[in-house]
Order: sequence, then C-alpha cells, then structure tokens
Amino acid sequence: MNQSPTPEASATDVAGRTAPRRAGRQDWSTWPHYDAAARGLRGYWYPITWASQVTDKPSAFTICGEKLALIRDSGEVYALHDRCPHRGVPLSLGNQQFPGTLSCPYHGWTWNLADGALCAVITDGPSSPIRGKVTVRTYAVEERLGMVWVYIPIGDETPHPIDEQLPPELVSNPFVMGGRIDQRTGNWRFACENGFDEGHAKYLHRTALWRLFKPMPTWNITRIVPQDRWIFRVQDEVHWEADFPGLGKWSNQRWWKKSPPKETFNIGNTGAAKKIDPTIEAQGFPGFASLSAPGVLRIAYPKFIHYEFYVPVDEDSHRYVGVMVNFTHGWRTALFYGKYLGAIRWLFHGQFSGQDAWMVDVTDAPPEKLYRPDVSLTSWRNLVETETTTKLAALETREEAR
Amino acid sequence: MNQSPTPEASATDVAGRTAPRRAGRQDWSTWPHYDAAARGLRGYWYPITWASQVTDKPSAFTICGEKLALIRDSGEVYALHDRCPHRGVPLSLGNQQFPGTLSCPYHGWTWNLADGALCAVITDGPSSPIRGKVTVRTYAVEERLGMVWVYIPIGDETPHPIDEQLPPELVSNPFVMGGRIDQRTGNWRFACENGFDEGHAKYLHRTALWRLFKPMPTWNITRIVPQDRWIFRVQDEVHWEADFPGLGKWSNQRWWKKSPPKETFNIGNTGAAKKIDPTIEAQGFPGFASLSAPGVLRIAYPKFIHYEFYVPVDEDSHRYVGVMVNFTHGWRTALFYGKYLGAIRWLFHGQFSGQDAWMVDVTDAPPEKLYRPDVSLTSWRNLVETETTTKLAALETREEAR
Amino acid sequence: MNQSPTPEASATDVAGRTAPRRAGRQDWSTWPHYDAAARGLRGYWYPITWASQVTDKPSAFTICGEKLALIRDSGEVYALHDRCPHRGVPLSLGNQQFPGTLSCPYHGWTWNLADGALCAVITDGPSSPIRGKVTVRTYAVEERLGMVWVYIPIGDETPHPIDEQLPPELVSNPFVMGGRIDQRTGNWRFACENGFDEGHAKYLHRTALWRLFKPMPTWNITRIVPQDRWIFRVQDEVHWEADFPGLGKWSNQRWWKKSPPKETFNIGNTGAAKKIDPTIEAQGFPGFASLSAPGVLRIAYPKFIHYEFYVPVDEDSHRYVGVMVNFTHGWRTALFYGKYLGAIRWLFHGQFSGQDAWMVDVTDAPPEKLYRPDVSLTSWRNLVETETTTKLAALETREEAR
Repeated sequence: MNQSPTPEASATDVAGRTAPRRAGRQDWSTWPHYDAAARGLRGYWYPITWASQVTDKPSAFTICGEKLALIRDSGEVYALHDRCPHRGVPLSLGNQQFPGTLSCPYHGWTWNLADGALCAVITDGPSSPIRGKVTVRTYAVEERLGMVWVYIPIGDETPHPIDEQLPPELVSNPFVMGGRIDQRTGNWRFACENGFDEGHAKYLHRTALWRLFKPMPTWNITRIVPQDRWIFRVQDEVHWEADFPGLGKWSNQRWWKKSPPKETFNIGNTGAAKKIDPTIEAQGFPGFASLSAPGVLRIAYPKFIHYEFYVPVDEDSHRYVGVMVNFTHGWRTALFYGKYLGAIRWLFHGQFSGQDAWMVDVTDAPPEKLYRPDVSLTSWRNLVETETTTKLAALETREEAR
Repeated sequence: MNQSPTPEASATDVAGRTAPRRAGRQDWSTWPHYDAAARGLRGYWYPITWASQVTDKPSAFTICGEKLALIRDSGEVYALHDRCPHRGVPLSLGNQQFPGTLSCPYHGWTWNLADGALCAVITDGPSSPIRGKVTVRTYAVEERLGMVWVYIPIGDETPHPIDEQLPPELVSNPFVMGGRIDQRTGNWRFACENGFDEGHAKYLHRTALWRLFKPMPTWNITRIVPQDRWIFRVQDEVHWEADFPGLGKWSNQRWWKKSPPKETFNIGNTGAAKKIDPTIEAQGFPGFASLSAPGVLRIAYPKFIHYEFYVPVDEDSHRYVGVMVNFTHGWRTALFYGKYLGAIRWLFHGQFSGQDAWMVDVTDAPPEKLYRPDVSLTSWRNLVETETTTKLAALETREEAR
Repeated sequence: MNQSPTPEASATDVAGRTAPRRAGRQDWSTWPHYDAAARGLRGYWYPITWASQVTDKPSAFTICGEKLALIRDSGEVYALHDRCPHRGVPLSLGNQQFPGTLSCPYHGWTWNLADGALCAVITDGPSSPIRGKVTVRTYAVEERLGMVWVYIPIGDETPHPIDEQLPPELVSNPFVMGGRIDQRTGNWRFACENGFDEGHAKYLHRTALWRLFKPMPTWNITRIVPQDRWIFRVQDEVHWEADFPGLGKWSNQRWWKKSPPKETFNIGNTGAAKKIDPTIEAQGFPGFASLSAPGVLRIAYPKFIHYEFYVPVDEDSHRYVGVMVNFTHGWRTALFYGKYLGAIRWLFHGQFSGQDAWMVDVTDAPPEKLYRPDVSLTSWRNLVETETTTKLAALETREEAR
C-alpha cells in the first residue's frame, strides 16, 4: 500500500458541506458482492434459535431482512414467511386451529405448514373459492447443534445439504456443547470481521478477566492459509513485547501472569498445550483461527473448539451465536458442563465477547484505512467474493439447463 | 377472481434485492382517491374530543395531518390553525389576554377567534403596522353528541351542514350515550375497513369476554346493500359451524353458550331479539352493520346502536371514537348508564375493541389478496371513490360559476 | 412591508396535498449564507465545555456537525477528529498508552496529540509500515473564561487569534464570573435570534420570577446601531402600557412592582441605575443588548454583563453557554459569588432562560412573517451575510496568492 499522509477529515466549506472524498480512501468497491450484502449472504443455512425455544406457539424472527414465523408441529419445525398475503398481518401472531397448519389471527386464513398452501379459510366456509389458490413462502429447516437452522435461498433454488456447510468435525464426531445467542446491534460483516480480525484481540481484550492469568502477544506476523471452504490465520512470528521508537515499551505481560511460551504455536492463542484433544488434533488445522462463509468463526483451543456464527438480521443488527464444543462423551461431559457454566459462559461468552459487541456496535466503515494485520479481513472478503461468484454461475447454468 | 397459485414473497437475488412484483398482486390503483387519502378524506366533519375537554386553556390536535388549536370562549368553541405565522410557534401554547382572542406565547401576536385576523400585537403597540394584515386559518366548529366537531375543508370551500352528515337517527331523536375516545396507531383506513369487515369478527373476537355466553357464526354469505349515503351488510346465509375437508370441524359454539337462533337475522350479530327498540325498528335498516364516509360505522343491536368514528390524525395514527347510544329518556336512562359503566365500557369498548386496535396496528396492505367476504371492503372503497368524485365535480362547478 | 391579508395555511386538495406556497411568504433566500448555515458558521472559535471537565480521559463533543475528541495532556488540551481512520471507531472511547498520545480502543492505533500523526500501531509492532502515513485531523484549542474553545475552520485555513473574536472588554479587564452550559434542542439560529430579539422578552418573560419586582415595558421603538463587529439595539421610545383598539389596556406593571423610570435608557432593560460600573461605562455601549458572529449575545446591566454563546451542535440542537461577568477584584468577588449562586443562577440562568429554551425548541421558520421589532433579526442576518462574504473573499485571495 503506497499511502501518502493525508488528513483524515475531508475539506469542508463555510456551511460545512463536505468536499468530494480524496483519492486513496479505501472503500469496498473491490468486493462488490460483499459490499452489496448488507443484509447477509443468501444461499446459506443460518442458526436461528435454540431448538427448545420453538414450540407449537409460533415465534417471529428476521433473518437476512426476511421475516420468518417458526412453529413446531408433531416434533417437526416449520418456517413460513411471516406475512399473511391477505392483509399483511404477521402469521407469528396466529395459532394452530388444525394439526399441520397455522391460522392467521385476523380472519383464520389457514396455511399448510409443509408447503405453505392455503388449505382453509375459516371465515369463508369449506367452499371458499380462494382455497388452494394462494401460497405463503416456506423455508427449509434443519435441527443441528441443538439449534433450528433455516435456509435463506437465492430466488427459488433448492437448498444444499446442511452438513456440507457445517464445520466437518461437527458432523461426524460425538461432542457436548454450551452456548449463548444474543441479538446485537451492528452489521453482521463487522461482527464477522471482528471475529477473525488478527489485530484487535491482543489490545482490546487486554482487560478481559478471561485473560487475567495468561498474557497475550503484543503483535504477530500472520499469514492466511486457505483450505477447503475455510481460511486459516497462521502465526509466523509472535512478539510478546515491543519498543516503539520515541514512545517506549509496551507489553501484555504482568508479573502475576504465566510466562509466555518460547515457541510459535497455532493451537490456542496463548501457547501450545502439552496434550491436545485427539479429535481436534486429527483435524490438522493449519492455524487456530479459521473462518468460512456465510460467517462462521472457529477458534481451536487444545481441549475444545469455540465457534461463532454471525447471523444477519438487517442492515443494523445481527444475532451472535457463540458455542463452545468439547469432543467428550460419558462421565467427562459433566466436567465440561461444570467448566462451561462455572467460568466459560461468564468470562468468555460474557465479558470477553461483550468487548467485541461494543466495537462491532461503534465500527463505521467504509471509509477505512487497512494495515498489515488486516490481511485477515481482505482474505475473508476475497473468499466471499469468490464463493459468491461461483455460486451465482452455478445457479445460472442450472437455470439455462431447465 | 382468477388467481393462479403464486408464492407470496417475491424472488430475491443474492444480495436480497427484491425483484419487480409479479402480476396478480392486488394494489389500490382501482381506488385512486382512496389510495391518495392516507391522511384522511377532506370535506367532512370530524369529532375531535369531548366537549367538556375544551376550555379557555387551548389544546392541540392533529386531524387529517392538520394542526389545530381548540379553545372555548364565552361558551363557544373555536378552532385555529395551530401555527403562529410569525415564527411558527404553536398557538395552543399561548393563552387569552383579551376576550374573544388567543395570543401567541412568544411575542403576544393576538388573533381574533372568530375570523383569525391579527387584531393586536402586544409587543408592537397599538400602532403596529402589521395589525389586520395577517390571518390565521380558522375552522368551522360544531358541538354534537357531547363532542366538538371540526370541518376539514377542501381548499376554502364552505362546510356543508353537519346534520346532513350525522347518522339521521341521531339528529331528531332523544337519546343517551356513553363512549370512549382513544388515539391509536395504524392508518384510519385500516380502522375503517376493520370495523365494517365481514370476516374477522367471528374469528378474531372468538376469545372476547363480550362473546362469552353468545356464540358467533363461523361463516356467512353476505351481500352489500347501498341506501342513501350508507352501505349495509346483509346476511343471506349464517353458518354456525363448518367441516373443512382434510382438516375437520370448526365452530364458535360451546356447551355453556346460548344456542344460536334457527333463522337468519339482520339486527344484532348473534340472533334476532324478541323485542326491538321502536326507534331502531323505525329506521328500517336493511342490515345490522353499515358504513358511511368519511368513516362512520353503525352496528344496530335490538336495544341500542353502537357507532365508531375513525378520525384520521396522520399516515400512521387515528382517533377511535366509540359511542353506544340508547334511544331512551326519563328514568330509564339510569338503567342504560348502569349497563354502560358496568359492562359495555370494559367488555365492548375495552377488550373487544382492543382486539381490533391490535389488528389495525399490524395490518400492512397493499399488497393484499382479497377473498369473498371482502366485498364489504371493496364496496366501501367504491363508495368513497364515487362520493369523492361527485364532491370534487360539484366544487369545480361552483368554482367556475364564480 | 406591503402585505395583503392572506390566510396562513396554504390551500390543500382533497387528499391534503399542499399547493405551492403563495407569494408574500417570507423565506431566507435574502440571506443565502445564513440559510445554508444550519450546522453553524465555520471560521470561528466556539466554547465547548468547562476547562475542569477536560481531563486525561477523553470526552466527545459534536460542534458544527463535526465530532471532536477532547483530552488534556500535561496541562494542555488537545482536540482530534473523533474517528479513527482505520475502522471508524471514536477515539474518545480510547485512552492514553503513552504520554502525548491517544490510542484507539480497538487496535491501539496511537495518535500524536499535537499534530494528529499516527506515531505507533501497538498491534503491528515497531516496524509497522503504516506508521507516519496517516493523520487524523486536529483542531486549534484555547482556554478562556474557564472554558475550552475550539476553532472550527473553513477548509484548512489558519485560525485567527481568539482575542480578536472575544468581546474586547473580556480580554484586558480583570473579572469574576459564574455560568451554565446546557445542551438544548432547536437550531442555533433560533437560539441566537431569540437572544437578540427585541420583541419577546417583555411578553414571554412577564411570568419569570427574575422580573417579580421590576416591570418590563409593553412595547418599544427600537433602532439597530452597528459598531465594530457588533450590532446594538437602541431604544428610542419605551412604552410601559398600551391601549389596544377594541380590546383594552395591557401592561406589565403591577402594584407591587417598582415604578418604571421616566426617561428612556440603554443600560439594563428596566431603567438606568444611579451608579454604573466604571468598566462597563467605559465601553460606551450604544445600547444594552448587542450581538456578534458567530452567535455571541451581550446584555449590559449597570453592575454586570451577561453573555450568551450559542454553539451549534447539529441541525436540531445547540449548546447554550450563559455567563454572568462582574468586573470586580479583591474581597468584592465574594459578594458577586454570593449573589450569583444565591439568585442569578436559579432565577436568570435557570427559569428565565428556560422560557427561552422552550420557545427555541418550538420555533419553526421559515416560512415566517416579520414585524417591526424584527429589525433586530434582519440586522443580525445581514451582519452574518456581510461578515461571511468578506471572510470567504479573503480566503480566496489568500488561496490565489499561494
């Protein structure tokens, strides 16, 4: 990047009108698909809420700007577009009058959960001429990791199998988990970029209790390694302190914290453990932090893996889904639950993650000026750009083949 | 209606941009005057508030998007445009410095209540050159049914007599009444359509305490009958239960409720009474629910008539004026007040009407898909369209005649 | 002004659409610079907050629509544009990691307070390639009257000396002062016009406790006298009561209030004092109320001077800075502080000024209809127009000379 020193704020005239932005300001035009995806990437599965929260009383969610009514019937979860075509009333305000259906609260328009067909209109009798002539959009639903997932399609495409999208280690191994789902302010892309961001953790989180006894590096030299649908952050150098010319020394080390490890490491972010969980080791992750579309972060620690799913709601908010997974079974699961409920939930999914939520809320880009560690951001945007282009090309081919 | 089954939500591309809406969606282009009247129909009298609420301290109301200051002086109520032409300060924040006037709180610009002329400017002395050279708009005011009514004109037209617009039975008969005025969210047209809507009452209100001991039909076959300035809903068939193919039986009947009447009826909505009030009977209403512009609903029960006036405030809110009228005099009025205050006010004007307020708030149309019972809606929109066209033609003729 | 009587509200058609405004309505096109300055006049010093409020923990302010982070370092106050160029996070959320700098909370981008240069990036180590290549805008800062002042420039102009802008009597004389700073709703121009407005004080403030024992005139004949950068209101006639034809007498006099003075006066607004403070007398003010750009009001009383600074925040809010100055020293300052804290603060800077805040909040112009006393408003707008034109011409000349 060949940047000349330019003042940050643009020139303004007497009335405060802003002059055209100077050259050299970074915008997102290099990533047109990413730039356009303020309300999320379509063509993916998204976790919505805990499976136990979806009952026979419908509930409302907005995902990728789309309003959904979720309801459980005979054990199955169904998702409908949350708008009755009659007069625009949310179906999530209605309830069940017949098994396998959901009725609008206003006039009893009754929708088949399986295919969205209008199967009865209570206030127009059995002979209602409109019956079978209107459909409400339905969404493909799956249950995984104790959560309800919904597929937000591009046009009317058929969803891909959810297991092709999930982190592969979660598809075939037994595990236990604990997690949190919060609705948060800020665009999903800022949440996603914050999660994979190489630079901020060591500085922003220096005051987190989660890091009380373990130091974090001051700065690293990082490389991005792609593998399958994922990109990994690989640390080539880890610097525990730094001496800034004219300013002085800076370090995250304190006398009461553990000494940092001597060697560079790529499992966990504070040093390699003596013993790594065999399932985690078997994955052969090139680095401890990895990211895949449509916004799934994986942080591999020696004994467990932490995942964050950033689920787009609308331009200004997203759902944060944080889960901690332990590849354990039998009586050892009790140990994990104890550790999760006693510490991880409050320190990591609580205060530590709350610092991220704060920054995601106040980030305001573009314009932006990127720096060396932001290779993690640009690699992610490139990944989205490539995957989206491929996806759209495949759809077009299929369309023509019809 | 020749509708083919189409999915409700429009196709969206990868970034969630909505494709042009498909043909067959219903909009309001058939009713251009109605479509344009988001802030209400002009050229009508509207009830604003209880007469007792208007005193010599001015109060502020917005009706049809127009800001009004109401004040009472020597028993008469006056309405001025609630904006001082000097610097835009609301006159309703001012007070009376001289009888027959209202002064702006800021600089004492003093307006004649009768004609809106600037009759003095306190802070510019008796010789103020601007005196008599500015006028604030005034509105025609009447008191009826214990309420203050204001005429919202088209341009500078002269108001028609209010008695030509009131339900005729309220002009010449003695009566007692009780009522409620609430400011509610939702456009006035949704309130109006909800009031006259044939379909919803039987389904939405099935849980209202007001209906605890009386069943309502499941579905009806309904005809709309026009008469003078009104349209009436006439029930040709009343079905107390229905068997929906593939789903099962549905009914509002319960073991503890009265048995429904055998015959079809058109006074009251739960069955014909043995004895009908002679004044109500004398009206010869063709049906129990009727509607007239600019949004007056009349529900004729055997012993009393319930009216709802939907008063436009702005695009997103309206005032609900609900009154229950009993054509009684003498000692019997005490019976009515007891019944009103003991039951009707809480059950009917409260919980029952609150269910309507809920739906009016969440209705979001167009787009919409109408069904057989919506003949009540389309007839109403046609009525508005015709009456407005006639009204505007008459105004044009008068304009040319000048 | 040759005004014909026109109704205030414009004609509206059936749907409430407003017809084009009639001729004769007053807009602000005569004062194009003033009209454009909704977010304040650039090229001036503005008081921001009390000096004691600015510490080594940064604080955020918006002035003229521009976001500022203020911080004190080794006794000096610095102001930076409150936006980290990296990702748009407010610098005011950060803190100091090294003396003479401020670090962004997110990634530790560290800015030199004196010139806004990026002097270190903690999370990218001492060799960070971006170091020295980005600058955040800085603002000139001064401390005067116990407050921090910031210069909001036109483009990248050099600020003029603050003492050239301050009321001259505050530059060279010893004084004591007390004051209030409030953030208030309403555009700064309404605050400014309200402060200098000849007309309202006598009517709006008639109920203020501050005026409990002293009457105010009913109306005056006023002239505006320019002098240096200021305009002064000079009273040629003072009328203590008035008899309005057809309405009656009106007066601010009450039996319990002091009798008004016989002669016209121009120091204080309730009559000339026996003894005027020598410093105030030495100024030779032509009138007791004066105003200068960018919104500084001076009310000269016999014993002290009251100043109001109207500081633009954005289109809809401003900061009110009210200070009462007494040209005293030695033990007499105790008397002033007693008087200020015991009465002036609550009666004058509190309730009296609160009446102004109320009107500034509800003023809504243009359109407007001006009257005779509004010569104070039009003179002020002319002053702004002339001073801005001169200022811009000077800047252009300087620009060409480069």
